[in-house]
Amino acid sequence: MASNAETRRTTNEILIGKKPLMTYVTATLVQLANEPTVVIKARGRSITRAVDVAQIIVKRMGNIGYKIGSVKIGSETIQSEDGKVRNVSTIEVQVSR
Amino acid sequence: MASNAETRRTTNEILIGKKPLMTYVTATLVQLANEPTVVIKARGRSITRAVDVAQIIVKRMGNIGYKIGSVKIGSETIQSEDGKVRNVSTIEVQVSR
Repeated sequence: MASNAETRRTTNEILIGKKPLMTYVTATLVQLANEPTVVIKARGRSITRAVDVAQIIVKRMGNIGYKIGSVKIGSETIQSEDGKVRNVSTIEVQVSR
Repeated sequence: MASNAETRRTTNEILIGKKPLMTYVTATLVQLANEPTVVIKARGRSITRAVDVAQIIVKRMGNIGYKIGSVKIGSETIQSEDGKVRNVSTIEVQVSR
């Protein structure tokens, strides 16, 4: 039961990386068919892409009625390869149907 | 009176461009000394930098008690030099003291 809940939470998130933008648009749309709310997450330079993905879904698929919920920004501390600690900005965009 | 109000609104915004990050951090801090709320705006690839600026202000100057208010994302239609119409994503981050 607990592991099931965890699986749900994981599939509810789309983490934006370096793949083509439409890959993430498609992945988000597939998730939105199953879940009422999907959270698009990104950090560092991918933040711009996360906003792009959310905008493409809301503007181009506007007739289906997807909408943007809360937008949260934050920062994470990561350890880079040379052992230094750096801060990286993060974003979480909630998209709902 | 009306023009005065307009001037206020304009100086209340920091538009993120291509200058060094700390330029915008300083500009935002100067505005926050005069205004209770400053809106950090960016579009396209500068979106990541807008989040960075907001995070630097909130985390590093945390003891002064600045905090992030609403974060809005959107998109604008712009005409590029070749006459084509493109969409560009935008962000507005409210920072308050």
